Amino acid sequence: YDYDGPLMKTTVPGPRSQELTKQLGDIQNVGAVNFFCNYEDSRGNYLVDVDGNRMLDIYTQISSIPIGYNHPALLKLMTNPNNLSTFVNRPALGILPPENFPDKITESLLSIAPSGMTRVQTMACGSCANENAFKSIFIWYRNKERGHNTPSEEELTTCMTNQAPGCPDLSILSFMGGFHGRTLGCLATTHSKVIHKLDVPSFDWPVAPFPRLKYPLEEFSRENAQEEARCLEEVEDLIVKWRQKGKPVAGIIIEPIQAEGGDNHASPDFFRNLRNISRKHGCAFHVDEVQTGGGCTGKFWAHEHWGMDDPAEIVSFSKKLLTGGYYQKDELQADKPYRIFNTWMGDPSKNLFLVEVLNVIRRENLLEEVTRSGKALLNGLYELQAQYPGLLSRARGQGTFCAIDVRDAATRDRLLLQARDKGMLLGGCGDQSIRFRPALVFKEYHVHIFLNIFNDVLAQN
Amino acid sequence: YDYDGPLMKTTVPGPRSQELTKQLGDIQNVGAVNFFCNYEDSRGNYLVDVDGNRMLDIYTQISSIPIGYNHPALLKLMTNPNNLSTFVNRPALGILPPENFPDKITESLLSIAPSGMTRVQTMACGSCANENAFKSIFIWYRNKERGHNTPSEEELTTCMTNQAPGCPDLSILSFMGGFHGRTLGCLATTHSKVIHKLDVPSFDWPVAPFPRLKYPLEEFSRENAQEEARCLEEVEDLIVKWRQKGKPVAGIIIEPIQAEGGDNHASPDFFRNLRNISRKHGCAFHVDEVQTGGGCTGKFWAHEHWGMDDPAEIVSFSKKLLTGGYYQKDELQADKPYRIFNTWMGDPSKNLFLVEVLNVIRRENLLEEVTRSGKALLNGLYELQAQYPGLLSRARGQGTFCAIDVRDAATRDRLLLQARDKGMLLGGCGDQSIRFRPALVFKEYHVHIFLNIFNDVLAQN
Ligand code: FES
Repeated sequence: YDYDGPLMKTTVPGPRSQELTKQLGDIQNVGAVNFFCNYEDSRGNYLVDVDGNRMLDIYTQISSIPIGYNHPALLKLMTNPNNLSTFVNRPALGILPPENFPDKITESLLSIAPSGMTRVQTMACGSCANENAFKSIFIWYRNKERGHNTPSEEELTTCMTNQAPGCPDLSILSFMGGFHGRTLGCLATTHSKVIHKLDVPSFDWPVAPFPRLKYPLEEFSRENAQEEARCLEEVEDLIVKWRQKGKPVAGIIIEPIQAEGGDNHASPDFFRNLRNISRKHGCAFHVDEVQTGGGCTGKFWAHEHWGMDDPAEIVSFSKKLLTGGYYQKDELQADKPYRIFNTWMGDPSKNLFLVEVLNVIRRENLLEEVTRSGKALLNGLYELQAQYPGLLSRARGQGTFCAIDVRDAATRDRLLLQARDKGMLLGGCGDQSIRFRPALVFKEYHVHIFLNIFNDVLAQN
Repeated sequence: YDYDGPLMKTTVPGPRSQELTKQLGDIQNVGAVNFFCNYEDSRGNYLVDVDGNRMLDIYTQISSIPIGYNHPALLKLMTNPNNLSTFVNRPALGILPPENFPDKITESLLSIAPSGMTRVQTMACGSCANENAFKSIFIWYRNKERGHNTPSEEELTTCMTNQAPGCPDLSILSFMGGFHGRTLGCLATTHSKVIHKLDVPSFDWPVAPFPRLKYPLEEFSRENAQEEARCLEEVEDLIVKWRQKGKPVAGIIIEPIQAEGGDNHASPDFFRNLRNISRKHGCAFHVDEVQTGGGCTGKFWAHEHWGMDDPAEIVSFSKKLLTGGYYQKDELQADKPYRIFNTWMGDPSKNLFLVEVLNVIRRENLLEEVTRSGKALLNGLYELQAQYPGLLSRARGQGTFCAIDVRDAATRDRLLLQARDKGMLLGGCGDQSIRFRPALVFKEYHVHIFLNIFNDVLAQN
């Protein structure tokens, strides 16, 4: 049901997109709008815009479309009359769940639970997933500190006005270049771009350096190991320092691959050592798989590449999973109801879709496809950077979760626009990287369509 | 299409609900689960549970169901094949909006925009609505302080590690008893219950007293005016004090009626004076209509009862609006793209539903119905508290957004369970209040069904 290639009728944005952008500009800031889409006509790997341009989508709504546009399995689900009421009546899941909720969660999220985790909490997006994961961590940490879960009178009183000890001075350690969302709690752990953080009050929480590795990783293993050791040492120093400051580190949050921050990788060893540091200092280890989860690295979770039985206390997700949420180890679950709570606690209609998405992933062996396409993509990028050493460097990736650096930001931005006008929709990340975030249905022949056209674009530059 | 009354087969939760609660308990904390629902069979004002009990729903999923369960207009929308792709392909609205987005927003949210506001930003829930509204406020405030919007080198550097001046020490003033959400930014302005806040780090932001009025308001206008004056004075004192502390108040957030905090009302005069104080001190005035918005007070927005042309800088919403978001005055819109941003920026499928909900509200004159039912409900509550003075007091309300106090928390909780076993689904709020949050299709005869049964319950106590 996929189209057989891109088809361009105008430059992008075309006249209709420009007109709609103007209209929307009276209502919102439209500075980030690329163009307007015709989602009805989009199919599989191809996004169609309102001017009839059909583009191979290698960005997929900021990496959030798991199995392409209008997948027949999802459309079919919509036409099943038994499912209608799930869309029409959004429940307050935490108090009045629908009959099929435990089964749907078991069929979907629990069937892909990370090693060692049998508990999952749905939330509506990646930010509330991380915010509530932080709260679980803080509650768990304070109960550990107290040795019991009965707060003092002073805690009960002070918390109502945001003061310690009721609202304790605890912190979450995060990494420079990390991205974990934009609500105020999440934003205190996000350090990818100035524009996200400027002018917003924040918490005095420690920020560790994330290894800046040389690629391909295999060729620079000694230098890279040194760089990783340096960062790990800094992590331990910060934990000690913040404890001394009276703001103990309750948790460490990290992405398996820093995405928004520029597709920064680290070795499985780095993560295993970091996990050990978290254990040693009694901090919860929180792996944020909002962008890496869902199969794009060739495994369902990127942390599976670390080969650990006990990878984390918390793994959060969103985007390709369609619902936000987080898995947690038993001891992290809040001790009382209503501590982790909000009106909707997710959206059962997204769980319905997720069940189907997982069926498609299994039926069509999409993780193997991703591994195959990813290999072709990365090899293609290696060849291109060999061919255009002045333009491209640092090709890297796992599965189709790939990236390459461009000489400078301006050239990167120009390449993105030129590629788009030729029917390739790509995204940037970090200061000067291009990131590849195709859907799981992006096959080897899509890789070749991309490489051919991208080659043409590079040749012009 | 509504049922003609409650119909109870078991006590609640019945055996099937208990079984499912046990099943879900292996996956999540289920301490807050009331019972499991059969949403297919629920209709209009009646929620049906998995044991076949049919209850008159006066709580409506924490006040989030606007026009009852399975409204035919919403079901019809689902069967229109033109709408399917909106459900199946959730876009990154901020960069790749669908063609009909400006029209749908114009038809829906803009058609009910508060006075003086022509700009609206959708978000996915009440928390991200408020979090992003705060960010808009902080950005606006800092640009005002600077006198321009070009940050210094120092700001650019410091913000990346959460430090001032890049992450400035600004604050939002909120009220004791207020509720604005549970993510860390929102939570710093929420002060309704200990359980929401305990153990979670927070910001040192000022908390003003909310007037504690005597009801009925008309009878105690002199005392109430004094109490309101005291609170307003305290607000000004706090603004001055926090400025001196180096943590200037950039915004004031308030609910038109404090909901979670116990249905606390204040007079239109109070809000008008508060609005003036915000102007005087250059703070943004942020009215949180997440629970009060959508028609339940008899006007679409509760702040309309204040009769002001320029009620606020920001009005946030969610729940009955089905999508979260906020309106803002032009000058509050962030100056650059990507400052207010996330992957989804709402969900167009919720906007589709909202268009239909607004059509139904207009077609069926539901605001007038609410006013009529609300009057009947409040009069009924006055009569009941006269009849049971030892049990009930402080009946209060606007539209059907009503509440009454019970002697103590234990009695309140018992009454709620007894009423539920007789087919009345009610919610609590504050320490000892019962809150009424029916859908907009709750008619006068539903009020009488409720009053009769509630009278029986009270007679037993
Ligand atoms: S914060 Fe996640 S949906 Fe609002």
